[in-house]
Amino acid sequence: MNKQELISQIFQKKSFLCVGLDTDVEKIPAHLQASDDPIFEFNKAIIDATAPFCVAYKPNLAFYECYGLKGLQAFERTIDYLKEHCPHHFVIADAKRGDIGNTSARYAKTFFETYAVDALTVAPYMGEDSVKPFLGYPGKWVIVLALTSNPGSKDFQFAPLTTGQRLFEKVLETSQAWSSDEHLMYVVGATQGKLFEDIRRIVPHHFLLVPGVGAQGGSLQEVCKYGMTKDCGLLVNSSRGILYAGTGHDFAEAAAAAAQKLQQEMAQALALVQR
Amino acid sequence: MNKQELISQIFQKKSFLCVGLDTDVEKIPAHLQASDDPIFEFNKAIIDATAPFCVAYKPNLAFYECYGLKGLQAFERTIDYLKEHCPHHFVIADAKRGDIGNTSARYAKTFFETYAVDALTVAPYMGEDSVKPFLGYPGKWVIVLALTSNPGSKDFQFAPLTTGQRLFEKVLETSQAWSSDEHLMYVVGATQGKLFEDIRRIVPHHFLLVPGVGAQGGSLQEVCKYGMTKDCGLLVNSSRGILYAGTGHDFAEAAAAAAQKLQQEMAQALALVQR
Repeated sequence: MNKQELISQIFQKKSFLCVGLDTDVEKIPAHLQASDDPIFEFNKAIIDATAPFCVAYKPNLAFYECYGLKGLQAFERTIDYLKEHCPHHFVIADAKRGDIGNTSARYAKTFFETYAVDALTVAPYMGEDSVKPFLGYPGKWVIVLALTSNPGSKDFQFAPLTTGQRLFEKVLETSQAWSSDEHLMYVVGATQGKLFEDIRRIVPHHFLLVPGVGAQGGSLQEVCKYGMTKDCGLLVNSSRGILYAGTGHDFAEAAAAAAQKLQQEMAQALALVQR
Repeated sequence: MNKQELISQIFQKKSFLCVGLDTDVEKIPAHLQASDDPIFEFNKAIIDATAPFCVAYKPNLAFYECYGLKGLQAFERTIDYLKEHCPHHFVIADAKRGDIGNTSARYAKTFFETYAVDALTVAPYMGEDSVKPFLGYPGKWVIVLALTSNPGSKDFQFAPLTTGQRLFEKVLETSQAWSSDEHLMYVVGATQGKLFEDIRRIVPHHFLLVPGVGAQGGSLQEVCKYGMTKDCGLLVNSSRGILYAGTGHDFAEAAAAAAQKLQQEMAQALALVQR
């Protein structure tokens, strides 16, 4: 999906919501546990219920890998289901990969050819040749970790450099040169609030993938106030707040309601954008 | 495997060689291609041939994931084979994971429970809560990226901080507080030569996993000169130089010869250690 298509979807659906598919078998309603593939059955119901309210889905690989082959099969089935039933939704594999060039090339092949998702999250620590192999795919996106939502973001991302920058600012500045805002996005945690202003000074036009609203305590209003551009420029993710909004037979309806609530707040924020 | 066992293996076998199982189907000898599981068949032959000369194996997940379920199956079979036939070899999953706490906990479960390998490589960018979930497993190891072997290591790892440190030095210093040298190792690329001196000033007792000898141009002599401790303190990896030493029916013999050559150089270096 290219940038223009993504922007169109956002303004058409009045939503920049990304539903994070961090599907935890232990939190799946009891009546699904007996299924052959509870993860997929849960995801399918969540996707059907939330598709009208979101523009993106983000399966988190850790929640699939931990069940070995069975988990990976559930991941594959989820991706296939999304491709068939939600061809206009943007699909992000949240895998935070990154290695030396020849290895990153393999990961790129995995996610952009084998699974053919739209985007992949990538860790920047190993620098240019660890990210570049992901950038050669037409219509595909790399989402580089810049300033994450977790407490550990303080350990290194804020490290003050002799240039006057903090490390996350150097990551933003340096990586911009590797591709354009048609292929590159950044992860910026919703918990970082006013820092979105500093980020927008460096990357005024890039899309930001924003986790951390809900369970992690980030504020959607602050993210919009400091991070939104005239093209929206945001994909705000919610995982636990939607997936586990209900715990019984009505879990999908509860998820739809939670997604719709966020979508309505997003519609209000989008209405203020001068296009 | 605990630290003392690893050290014993090294001095007993006169080797600190780690064989990297970055198995590339396109480089596997033609006669194996017809097999149902060419990756596993190749790995099995490589393991049988090289086991006397090495103390560790390091499958690189990217080379398995890119074939989807079939690839993951080959990874599982390889791990199972190692557990059965090489119980005294140290097994490292080279996956470079790292995410917010609840997600890292899933990756830890994947590699330390589902696959039950000895060690996992982890990226430090997301800080303490992204690494800590890996550190709670008895006898298991986390290998944090510090100074990598690739050209992109220059982009961020050398960033000069206002404290006078470079970023990789801060990573070494900060992460040391998260666990002891009984659970924590660091990746330091063989291409970094004399910088091993600076690293040893910060982590005098930690084991270092050293990729980059061979195809990437690192020198084993330099690594030993500047990085070796009285406990050896090094696991030096070679992947392509061993796996693809031969291309025909004699590929396993060629791999054994390449591994033995490195082992003999290592034996010489170990002979100089004052214990």
